[in-house]
Amino acid sequence: MKANGNHYRTVWLEGSVVKLINQPLLPHKFEIFSCRTCKETAEAIKNMIVRGAGAIGAAAGYAMAQVFLSGDDVEAGAELIKSTRPTAQNLFYAVEKVMKAKDKEEAVKIANGIADEDAAACKRIGEYGEPLIKTNFRILTHCNAGWLAFVDYGSALAPVYLANRNGKRVFIFVDETRPRCQGSMLTAWELGNENIPYAIIADNAAGYYMRKKEIDIVITGADRIAANGDAANKIGTYEKAVLAKENNIPFYIAAPIATIDFSISSGDEILIEERNEEEVLEISGLNGNGKTSKIRISPKNAKAKNPAFDVTPAKYIKGFITEKGIFKPEEIKKLYKLN
Amino acid sequence: MKANGNHYRTVWLEGSVVKLINQPLLPHKFEIFSCRTCKETAEAIKNMIVRGAGAIGAAAGYAMAQVFLSGDDVEAGAELIKSTRPTAQNLFYAVEKVMKAKDKEEAVKIANGIADEDAAACKRIGEYGEPLIKTNFRILTHCNAGWLAFVDYGSALAPVYLANRNGKRVFIFVDETRPRCQGSMLTAWELGNENIPYAIIADNAAGYYMRKKEIDIVITGADRIAANGDAANKIGTYEKAVLAKENNIPFYIAAPIATIDFSISSGDEILIEERNEEEVLEISGLNGNGKTSKIRISPKNAKAKNPAFDVTPAKYIKGFITEKGIFKPEEIKKLYKLN
Repeated sequence: MKANGNHYRTVWLEGSVVKLINQPLLPHKFEIFSCRTCKETAEAIKNMIVRGAGAIGAAAGYAMAQVFLSGDDVEAGAELIKSTRPTAQNLFYAVEKVMKAKDKEEAVKIANGIADEDAAACKRIGEYGEPLIKTNFRILTHCNAGWLAFVDYGSALAPVYLANRNGKRVFIFVDETRPRCQGSMLTAWELGNENIPYAIIADNAAGYYMRKKEIDIVITGADRIAANGDAANKIGTYEKAVLAKENNIPFYIAAPIATIDFSISSGDEILIEERNEEEVLEISGLNGNGKTSKIRISPKNAKAKNPAFDVTPAKYIKGFITEKGIFKPEEIKKLYKLN
Repeated sequence: MKANGNHYRTVWLEGSVVKLINQPLLPHKFEIFSCRTCKETAEAIKNMIVRGAGAIGAAAGYAMAQVFLSGDDVEAGAELIKSTRPTAQNLFYAVEKVMKAKDKEEAVKIANGIADEDAAACKRIGEYGEPLIKTNFRILTHCNAGWLAFVDYGSALAPVYLANRNGKRVFIFVDETRPRCQGSMLTAWELGNENIPYAIIADNAAGYYMRKKEIDIVITGADRIAANGDAANKIGTYEKAVLAKENNIPFYIAAPIATIDFSISSGDEILIEERNEEEVLEISGLNGNGKTSKIRISPKNAKAKNPAFDVTPAKYIKGFITEKGIFKPEEIKKLYKLN
């Protein structure tokens, strides 16, 4: 998608150098981060220079290709990459796949294939989801399920981008998505670069606009989907889903089929990560001197709780927009065959 | 209530000086602001050194008493005070009441009476609401409806303070309440000073805890209540009310009867203030040097929408905790006689 008027992916290979959009600097600074070695790429994954399931997978694949290009030990390189983000399923998939290459040319080819597959899946999600968006639709999204989280196109935003390119007028309500503000920091930046009209809103305001009938559809991403259609996603997604149902607004989740964990029968089995309370008590942004600064927005010694995700029960979800089509929650199980 | 171990009201008179807790400095600094003249008090009301319906009313009464004490023109003083916050109903009530004094002694007496009445009403709200709170209850509140918004005790927090003093163990979930963060800035500060255990949560996390059955009751304040029991309050209150209903958690509003506007038949008639979008795009707090600093948490040129309040329809409200007892929404109309 576009950044500063040019087309970019979040991650790509130039010679033996892995290039990444430096995401922690966004939206205040757009910079390409270069990783000359597998070790540097692993470090970048660990430090979240690249984040988002699809983008991490592609970066891991390229890191593995760098191992082949440098002639380093394949097993040791694989271990290093796998140790960076221990819960990222796409990362393991990518490392295992590139490891099987018989030479450096094949390793690069497989790594490029992984990135291309991710981009292609997201493109298909856009194509399947686009007809859900009618012209003049006002769409609510939560967190960032845009192209920055994948290699290109994104999941929840892919239908939006395609609708916009097809000439449909759309307006996006962007939940700021406290505590880490991925909505106001990343989603707003993506939409601005594509010249799509939007407004950031406090997470508190989504219900207000739903009740006023100013939101026509809600689309979010997902981090993990259970076989029964329950979906874990960024904290607050459950709130929006309940409010959408109460106001008769369709609530969709857009995600590649790789997001479905067929081994878990319901969302109750998904463990929710409790993150550092400082994410709630403090906040980072750009200060008046153009520098990134952290400020405290709570009393000294204040206490906080910070669950990073919640689970939206299947009954609130109208459908899952995937690269194989749109499915109702009760149809998720049958995707096992297609996977 | 307590601040740094001592009892304070938000506003009081010492000789001819009006003293105010300087609220914009909280929670980072506790400081008393002195207003030597009616003009200085009016200025302080205008600049929101004092905020909250009850506290503004008391400050306005004292400002009017200052007019009498200084021998200034009563009409001119009244006009000055009334011009500070043109929509604050309590302010007009207080000015009119003190204006009728025949001398400076009576003016001071009436002004003190207004402050005492506000404190007494909140104390009664606490007494009526306290039995709703069982020991070990986990209570969610939104925004700040504590004593800082009134003269003492508060509305939504009054039952909490009394339950705590009665030896009931309670735990408070404090919605941070974006965009202005009155939850993390003021409510958390109040609770810390009373040694009541609490956790600030992102507004997104309230639904998560409700679904986990970790919240037993929700109590918020209100800015305006219609005759049919619809209630306008800080943006996000509607979201919490819908989520409470979905999870079978009782949702109460605590407010003095003065908050009821019997002239409006439903919440649809309440105009919602749209505030500056900078409140969403930027945020203020304490930086590493101990100074208040504003930082940007959104892209340059980003757009935002910022409705300050929402309306919670009566059907989501289990009851109104007032100084005359607890009433169901359909009983609000009959309070007209009591008023």
